[in-house]
Amino acid sequence: MRDIDEITITIEVLRRLSDTPDPRLREILQALVRHLHQFARDTGITEEEWLQGIRYLTETGQTCDGVRQEFVLLSDTLGLSQLVVSQNHRRREQVTEQTILGPFFIQGLPVTTGQGMDISGGTHGEPLFITARVMASDGPVAAATVDVWQADADGLYDVQRSGWSIDRSQLRATLITDVDGRFSCRSILPKSYPIPMDGPVGKMMRATRRSPMRPAHIHFAIQKAGFDPLVTHVFVEGDEFLESDAVFGVRGSCIGSYERHAPGVAPDGTTVGVPFFVLDHVFRLEPAEEARQCTS
Amino acid sequence: MRDIDEITITIEVLRRLSDTPDPRLREILQALVRHLHQFARDTGITEEEWLQGIRYLTETGQTCDGVRQEFVLLSDTLGLSQLVVSQNHRRREQVTEQTILGPFFIQGLPVTTGQGMDISGGTHGEPLFITARVMASDGPVAAATVDVWQADADGLYDVQRSGWSIDRSQLRATLITDVDGRFSCRSILPKSYPIPMDGPVGKMMRATRRSPMRPAHIHFAIQKAGFDPLVTHVFVEGDEFLESDAVFGVRGSCIGSYERHAPGVAPDGTTVGVPFFVLDHVFRLEPAEEARQCTS
Repeated sequence: MRDIDEITITIEVLRRLSDTPDPRLREILQALVRHLHQFARDTGITEEEWLQGIRYLTETGQTCDGVRQEFVLLSDTLGLSQLVVSQNHRRREQVTEQTILGPFFIQGLPVTTGQGMDISGGTHGEPLFITARVMASDGPVAAATVDVWQADADGLYDVQRSGWSIDRSQLRATLITDVDGRFSCRSILPKSYPIPMDGPVGKMMRATRRSPMRPAHIHFAIQKAGFDPLVTHVFVEGDEFLESDAVFGVRGSCIGSYERHAPGVAPDGTTVGVPFFVLDHVFRLEPAEEARQCTS
Repeated sequence: MRDIDEITITIEVLRRLSDTPDPRLREILQALVRHLHQFARDTGITEEEWLQGIRYLTETGQTCDGVRQEFVLLSDTLGLSQLVVSQNHRRREQVTEQTILGPFFIQGLPVTTGQGMDISGGTHGEPLFITARVMASDGPVAAATVDVWQADADGLYDVQRSGWSIDRSQLRATLITDVDGRFSCRSILPKSYPIPMDGPVGKMMRATRRSPMRPAHIHFAIQKAGFDPLVTHVFVEGDEFLESDAVFGVRGSCIGSYERHAPGVAPDGTTVGVPFFVLDHVFRLEPAEEARQCTS
């Protein structure tokens, strides 16, 4: 093909991909090429703009390290992550919605079977007591694994602090629901915080005058055999950034009531000398089979 | 926007980009988001596939260093680079076509004003004498700057060899045309070679069963005030890979006749004791003004 031009080159690239043995890889790559080429034609992208794009992607890759994933953050801030999550977890209305995992989830924490654990690790903040329940349509879900993780009062996750290691984790835990589907722990009230702005994503956010803020939230990931694994947030009702989450993660079923209480006896029976908050929340799981039917 | 779904999220992301002060950046980012989201929906991309994509892009960025640009290579092998080049250099039929720069161009070489320089730096190969001419529609183009660069007989560019530095360049030079628009140098016959296959692009080429080969060629970049800068290749007529160039760079006006000669007197007047080749080629430039009119 010596006489391909800026239009017919797409046909030629698709043809070269047509021998890909894996049909799914072929489908994805051919769709990618069609959109990539049409994007370049729609915008009439210049060589200088193309080079800026190459440099931007390179810098994004090189900003990633063991605990930072700038490409995930870029995908999050372009709404791609939440789109992918949503189209893979179509759910009935009464079920808790799926949201992005975000870049700060850590696998492999020790599992805590008891209730009421203090996961704050002594970090400062307003006391929060989480008393939650995991439900299916026919009743409570016992022995579900619940990962919980959140930022500290400065808006930073433990992995963003220097010197972090898994045995020095803070504000994260892996819990197990009891026979009534309940789990509980003590933590601190989450605060709204900006996404990391010192890399390529920060450049994009500033150049587009977008708010870098995420509304205050705690992450939860709940797994139990027979159910579609739930990855979700519980956002703080009334937060000023609920309508402008930088990563498009807010959904109606993911807003929780963090109720303020005067000093006194907390849900775990201890007496707290300062005002404290209680999040009494219900997570509703989708059976794995029904989740599959919805997407087919 | 708490009730956005996998479809309406695109509208919301576009809205968030609508305050971008630079109208061109806004246009590009909004087109990117539309295509990126539609690509994800068209293919019904799964979370695992999304994560594979994130890892692939990250690895591509981290494969880049001072002399290697894996994102450029990825763009080249997906046909994007040649598409962008073509749509920015629409030319009349009789003018030499624009092709991709490729990742191995080096700026800032010392300029050689004389003719007949040996640019091979002593590397082994079949002798080649380049006697070329740079023409405009109304006659020769004198004092044009000509960058020439090519791979060695092993298919490697000097910058791919360890210990490369600009003062130890090989098989590249910056020449100047004489009053008749001519330039000449001595080099070696180029050979077809595979693109670098030890990185993410190599994985893609293997997974799609694509040929990694580039047909034998020499790169030329020709600049002269008043003309659209020409970046092109001269491919070897008859090369077996002309129809399957891994980076889609072959165009009809970019194929040259590398003529084989028996041992004897070469074009530069020296006597060569082995068979040698001569590339007698004409490059035709587009006036800058006409190039602009063609693209408007």
